[in-house]
Amino acid sequence: MDGSDHLAHERSKAQFDVEKMKIVWAGSLYAFQVSNRIARLVAGDPAFTKENRAVLSRRELFKNTLRKAAHAWKRITELGLSEEEASWLRFYVDELSYAYVHWGMFVPAIKGSGTEDQQNKWLPLATNMQIIGTYAQTELGHGSNVRGLETTANFDPKTDEFIIHSPTLTSSKWWPGGLGKIATHAVVYARLITDGQDHGVHGFIVQLRSLDDHLPLPGITVGDIGMKFGSGAFNSIDNGFVRFDHVHIPRNQMLMRVSQVTREGKYVHSNVPRQLVYGAMVYVRQIIVVDASIALSRAVCIAARYSAVRRQFGSENHEISGTGVETQVIDYKTQQSRLFPLLASAYAFRFVGEWLKWLYTDLTQKLEANDFSTLPEAHACTAGLKSLTTSAAADGIEECRKLCGGHGYLTSSGLPELYAVFVPACTYEGDNIVLLLQVARFLMKTISKLPSGGNYKLSGATAYMGHMEHYLIKYSCNVQKAEDWLKPNTILEAFEARAIRMCFACAQNLTEFADQSEGFSELSTDLVEAAIAHCQLIVVSKFIKKLQQNIEGNGVKQQLETLCYIYALHLIHKNSGDFLSTGSLNPKQASLANDQLRSLYAKVRPNVIGLVDAFNYSDHFLGSVLGCYDGNVYPKLYEEACKDPLNDSVVADGYGEYIQPLLNQQLLNARL
Amino acid sequence: MDGSDHLAHERSKAQFDVEKMKIVWAGSLYAFQVSNRIARLVAGDPAFTKENRAVLSRRELFKNTLRKAAHAWKRITELGLSEEEASWLRFYVDELSYAYVHWGMFVPAIKGSGTEDQQNKWLPLATNMQIIGTYAQTELGHGSNVRGLETTANFDPKTDEFIIHSPTLTSSKWWPGGLGKIATHAVVYARLITDGQDHGVHGFIVQLRSLDDHLPLPGITVGDIGMKFGSGAFNSIDNGFVRFDHVHIPRNQMLMRVSQVTREGKYVHSNVPRQLVYGAMVYVRQIIVVDASIALSRAVCIAARYSAVRRQFGSENHEISGTGVETQVIDYKTQQSRLFPLLASAYAFRFVGEWLKWLYTDLTQKLEANDFSTLPEAHACTAGLKSLTTSAAADGIEECRKLCGGHGYLTSSGLPELYAVFVPACTYEGDNIVLLLQVARFLMKTISKLPSGGNYKLSGATAYMGHMEHYLIKYSCNVQKAEDWLKPNTILEAFEARAIRMCFACAQNLTEFADQSEGFSELSTDLVEAAIAHCQLIVVSKFIKKLQQNIEGNGVKQQLETLCYIYALHLIHKNSGDFLSTGSLNPKQASLANDQLRSLYAKVRPNVIGLVDAFNYSDHFLGSVLGCYDGNVYPKLYEEACKDPLNDSVVADGYGEYIQPLLNQQLLNARL
Repeated sequence: MDGSDHLAHERSKAQFDVEKMKIVWAGSLYAFQVSNRIARLVAGDPAFTKENRAVLSRRELFKNTLRKAAHAWKRITELGLSEEEASWLRFYVDELSYAYVHWGMFVPAIKGSGTEDQQNKWLPLATNMQIIGTYAQTELGHGSNVRGLETTANFDPKTDEFIIHSPTLTSSKWWPGGLGKIATHAVVYARLITDGQDHGVHGFIVQLRSLDDHLPLPGITVGDIGMKFGSGAFNSIDNGFVRFDHVHIPRNQMLMRVSQVTREGKYVHSNVPRQLVYGAMVYVRQIIVVDASIALSRAVCIAARYSAVRRQFGSENHEISGTGVETQVIDYKTQQSRLFPLLASAYAFRFVGEWLKWLYTDLTQKLEANDFSTLPEAHACTAGLKSLTTSAAADGIEECRKLCGGHGYLTSSGLPELYAVFVPACTYEGDNIVLLLQVARFLMKTISKLPSGGNYKLSGATAYMGHMEHYLIKYSCNVQKAEDWLKPNTILEAFEARAIRMCFACAQNLTEFADQSEGFSELSTDLVEAAIAHCQLIVVSKFIKKLQQNIEGNGVKQQLETLCYIYALHLIHKNSGDFLSTGSLNPKQASLANDQLRSLYAKVRPNVIGLVDAFNYSDHFLGSVLGCYDGNVYPKLYEEACKDPLNDSVVADGYGEYIQPLLNQQLLNARL
Repeated sequence: MDGSDHLAHERSKAQFDVEKMKIVWAGSLYAFQVSNRIARLVAGDPAFTKENRAVLSRRELFKNTLRKAAHAWKRITELGLSEEEASWLRFYVDELSYAYVHWGMFVPAIKGSGTEDQQNKWLPLATNMQIIGTYAQTELGHGSNVRGLETTANFDPKTDEFIIHSPTLTSSKWWPGGLGKIATHAVVYARLITDGQDHGVHGFIVQLRSLDDHLPLPGITVGDIGMKFGSGAFNSIDNGFVRFDHVHIPRNQMLMRVSQVTREGKYVHSNVPRQLVYGAMVYVRQIIVVDASIALSRAVCIAARYSAVRRQFGSENHEISGTGVETQVIDYKTQQSRLFPLLASAYAFRFVGEWLKWLYTDLTQKLEANDFSTLPEAHACTAGLKSLTTSAAADGIEECRKLCGGHGYLTSSGLPELYAVFVPACTYEGDNIVLLLQVARFLMKTISKLPSGGNYKLSGATAYMGHMEHYLIKYSCNVQKAEDWLKPNTILEAFEARAIRMCFACAQNLTEFADQSEGFSELSTDLVEAAIAHCQLIVVSKFIKKLQQNIEGNGVKQQLETLCYIYALHLIHKNSGDFLSTGSLNPKQASLANDQLRSLYAKVRPNVIGLVDAFNYSDHFLGSVLGCYDGNVYPKLYEEACKDPLNDSVVADGYGEYIQPLLNQQLLNARL
């Protein structure tokens, strides 16, 4: 490599303080410093190389990941890293293993649902990794509908044990990460049965494998569920199945914080509120929103840098033959109109994720004080935003890949892997459509409680619904020229009007059904669209709110303002049908939004490389020859290609058997 | 497996003659019979099993593909299959190899661009596979812009040879399938230079490897470009790179049908028109449209069958505990509103592909008679439809995968592979956005030629533009109730009005720019949207046209009508912003379209399994445990999982090194 920065010219054009933007992106100076330090630690450690990840066979890939996970834990222990630092380290290692499930699901499940005694027993074992845990909820035949789970935990008062059993093939636990080959223990969700009575689904700690020789314990059949999307991606982890044949566990391995089974086999509730379960859901989903912003920003960083390096076609006026230089792909308006909204979305999701983190902290404090009033709204917010951001991020990553042309299809671009790793977020922890239906249900409930006529005080992200009358009767958008779209309030009102009118129309249409649940089912696609409108409004409003904070750094706030407008106006353009059909905008105003969008693209253009540099991603973390910091793309592409195992020999393995006889017309006699 | 048909009840509900629909889908009784016969031949041949494809390492996968390709050629030869039958056989083998490029691009390139002498020399060698060819156009730094290619072919009058040379790294040929390890010859596109003068890009037949030992010839550096998206997909083929270091080839290896270089080094044109090149583009792209309908229909077949098998949640009224049976996923309106338009799209693309085939035949006859009048329109049609159908099919396949929930993410669902194999069609043979810009350019040209005022007679797919005045001034949609949307003319007019108004608005806005090319660039995103509107109109109109034909079979035509309406109305709903902003519809009419759409979903519901059975895909071809004909999904999922190499041992490879020391707290001393 030549060592020079092929993007230096782009970087010199940035009109803002990139270093200060890095801090805004990270969330705080402290967060920037910790993550930056750990990122460098990982990137500089040859044991964490991503080399050859795509060409390894399943077994090799899996073993290699075990090695990395062990090395990670070794480094964490040696350096005495804090829990926060350890989690950053796993993040930057960037390879899915049992460790993610152990720390991200098993440990929190015990913390959240275990009694104090249970926590005292199990948490030290887990935090020292003397046991490795997984979280076994979904079954072969049962995903979204937890209440449909078939696994049973039958209490046997004679032995004071639960008998965990898989009564059917479809009741096999299916999908838990780390389950297939590694986990020694699992939190297993099963229908609790005492004295023939079904009390619904509860969690149980079940040991799966011997701590001596790692063999499955009697009555347990466990294995990997097979290859998944992509060449690396989730194939580095052993998503698994397990079947229980009357496996006995002690009674005290039921997670008993909320409900208990007594020695006599009586099912009782503690005074700990059940709602805490929803608090855990809010926690997991707000993390996924942050993941979405990270995954999307990685893809945008790669696509932006490569679009600045890649040149294709000349302008019509000066053909190649004239100037000898083709146009940078990033200067094409079609490229900008696809890429820049994704850049804006990455920032938008980052800030709404930050807000959700606050929301979760606020909620936890309230729940602990037995105040459940904000729970439904917080639950709807996180469910909806999980759905909105993961769908947009997954689509956005693929769009970034396509924006890189053919080379984006190469594994060395990093983009196929990024997509394959991220896209299941649209399905896990609540299918995105199912979640939107939950949001819609909440919105319909909110509307049904509004007194007719007049305005009404609501709190949280549905506060605008208190202005029902204003938006249904009085409101009309006052945009008359393109510049009018550069007012936060104008944007906010248009999004509020659209959301409220769509929700209100659904509520009205629902009244036409005698059977509410039939109406809800019949109108479910409209309800999903209304829920999306509500969620988009939240993202826009939180971006605007972010801009009202004190933001340091030369030009930083101005760039964020531009991105905020791009985010909002591109949504208006994309969903113009909603805005027009509800009369929230007229066609002229929608068209002016589009005109303004074009100006904003021109305005952000010189800053794009700076804005992706602000993510502060190392070349190791990005894992992309197209997105490397120095933009020296072509030699790196060539170098990566040469590493493919097919290039180990000049003449291909199989030539003698399958090509030579063919060329020599001797195929008919050949043994194939 | 239990041998029973788990979808029998669904099949019994179909209200049409599925066998007759198979013939409609195939195009003719003859086409059905040939394809059906070859499909069974392939499915029944154990040498063509797809078993374990996902878990093979790159080298194993590649070698296995060489074996299948050789076996395919052996069978083709043994059975004396016709060219058509042979191509069906390769189709059903369903694994990308050098053979596709050899037959699909190398042979046609020689047929299309070679002189009679050249054809006489090279075609027998190629059709006997005594040589294996590839098509080397794109370069590391040059994709879409053919005129930017850097490879040179310098004529040396002393030796009567061309010197093929790669002057830069970015001029390396990059991407051709079969190039990396297999092809012995290539049609190489290079800048023809005679006496220092650059005549632009021409094709040359270059031998790459020795026919004795398969080693690259002197001056040639060739290899594989590395792993691509997915675990199988394009990794079974050796997309390659090649660099030429002053490689000499005889003068008669320039493809000379259109232009020649004489012995004296003079560059001359024959009387064969250059436009034939565009004819070849039309040919390739119409095939891709057919591919799109096939790829999408495979995904739809899998998702539909699994959605009928899979049950999740009860309705609110009868909870699980009551009936014990959950609702079939296919009965959810949200599932229907995502799946059924894709089913309709698969049929729509099939019929527009059929029409394009006719268009190509018609064009060829005209070109041969030196009539080039319909070429621009045919070129725009195929470019636009290639773009529209591949984008919709790629997105649709992913949507089908998501509709299968978590299990769609398993390789054994067949869907990840289907997506990874198909999605590059959005990029190759013309990037989809670049193609839409070409369509837009054609449309703007068409409009600029219209005399102002009055109607004007145009032919082909732009004929409606002759009614400019009608649509710009007089037209208003007369839909007043949902049933009014069940009239082909009403639909057609709405699509025509929308397309013409969007095109006209672009044309108007372009006049505001002094510099036309600057205007075209500035407005390119609007132009792309106008081009899409035009292309969607074509698909809708050809579906309607198909329904005007005589279609046999009980209920067959009625089903196609329903699908046609679903296709059109879902587009109206999805693009309602266009229809509303152009005033082609009012909000009430758009909302009625949506109401009608809901009725149509209910109408098609009992026929969905029949409609996917009509594709006549064998389980071998589908390669999906979720989409298998008998719907016996869960035992098959379990069986497939057990085959993963990770399950070869009970305790994972790597346990001793990386897990045991960790569990035993001895990691700090371990060697990792």
